[in-house]
Amino acid sequence: MMLDKFPAIILINPQLGENIGMAARAMLNCGLTDLRIVNPRDGWPSEEAARASAGALDKGVKATVYTSTRDAIADCHLTFATTARPRDMIKQVYTGRAAMAEAHAKINEGQRVGVLFGAERTGLENEDIALANAIITMPLNPSFSSLNLAQAVLMVAYDFMMQGDETAEAQLQTGKTDIAEAATVTDFTTRLIEELAAKGFFKSPDMRPTMERNLTNLLTRHDWTDQDIQTLHGVVSAFVKDH
Amino acid sequence: MMLDKFPAIILINPQLGENIGMAARAMLNCGLTDLRIVNPRDGWPSEEAARASAGALDKGVKATVYTSTRDAIADCHLTFATTARPRDMIKQVYTGRAAMAEAHAKINEGQRVGVLFGAERTGLENEDIALANAIITMPLNPSFSSLNLAQAVLMVAYDFMMQGDETAEAQLQTGKTDIAEAATVTDFTTRLIEELAAKGFFKSPDMRPTMERNLTNLLTRHDWTDQDIQTLHGVVSAFVKDH
Repeated sequence: MMLDKFPAIILINPQLGENIGMAARAMLNCGLTDLRIVNPRDGWPSEEAARASAGALDKGVKATVYTSTRDAIADCHLTFATTARPRDMIKQVYTGRAAMAEAHAKINEGQRVGVLFGAERTGLENEDIALANAIITMPLNPSFSSLNLAQAVLMVAYDFMMQGDETAEAQLQTGKTDIAEAATVTDFTTRLIEELAAKGFFKSPDMRPTMERNLTNLLTRHDWTDQDIQTLHGVVSAFVKDH
Repeated sequence: MMLDKFPAIILINPQLGENIGMAARAMLNCGLTDLRIVNPRDGWPSEEAARASAGALDKGVKATVYTSTRDAIADCHLTFATTARPRDMIKQVYTGRAAMAEAHAKINEGQRVGVLFGAERTGLENEDIALANAIITMPLNPSFSSLNLAQAVLMVAYDFMMQGDETAEAQLQTGKTDIAEAATVTDFTTRLIEELAAKGFFKSPDMRPTMERNLTNLLTRHDWTDQDIQTLHGVVSAFVKDH
């Protein structure tokens, strides 16, 4: 499969077609073409989007619609979540510039990178952020940091475009195995949660969503290899088999 | 007169109030407050502008209307004109980043800096460009370089804000927990290996050292927090308890 040279822009539950179109225009201004849309409120395709894109949706940006964040990031090796303010999660927080330097390095190694953007008013849900490997928070005016959706996309796309092809200072040495795609990691997370539920790990139904999110966060913020995930499956299998 | 620490954003003949409002929002996102508007087509003040500014026109951006570009830049020591493509003029052409580095230097010397933006469809007239000291042309996708007005303002404001930003580019957001010390991680690794051995995970004695090393590697190359390791202990406990 041909690998993209640019990160995918992934809009989660965007409300207005106009904003999707302006985001597409901003992407193509900076050379980005892979637009993924999860559950656009007003449907797709959208006349408002086409108009606001000023031709970008015809001239280069390819938009694909997904029904879940998980599906939209399935083929990504590194996923960033954009948030305006810190969340109570253990994840690496980057500026746009630092994140896109990292994106360049990973793309040069043959990996796929995605950047998640939340809905206009509410931003990303914690469940979506938990699926990402790291966070981007732009270093904006702290007393007025709420960005228009298309403006947020532009800043990230611009930061990507402005980075030269600088080599990463530290590269992960993976030997013969590859960095796991998101689907590989989320499949393992799903299995782990099911096996733990069967073992009575989630004692209180009230706490279960938080506990699941903690587990998901713990497993997504690292750059696992395929071999790592195989090993972890082996660990779980050893624990759950009858003896 | 008090000098601004930030460049003035000067919109020449803008057409839509909505675009002026979005430009104001982008300015305040990046800490800029001096907005100058020359002959807005639909008049001023503008309800559309107020709405699109998301509060920026109330909360910090001061908009002043002028009847000529000459008046609008009268107090500026250095004025940049933004253009999408080269014009037939002998002027220094900067990227946004280089121009805003120059703006910082001049402002630090006590000078005032302005940046001109043309109307939505037509851009700046040559007469306006002629009044500027230098040109900014963003290094965009050459086959799709036409920017939305507010997006152009955002890029320049962002380039100004990002100059001389000394904050760390990436830091781990750990909330209330600390990064685990090595002993915390190795204690967990040791426990995991013992529990796995009891479950018959290490089928072949020959392979056991390699498998142990793989598990250790997998657990040591990440920056776990204390809370992560507690969670992992909980996972193992759930699996090994009798049920």
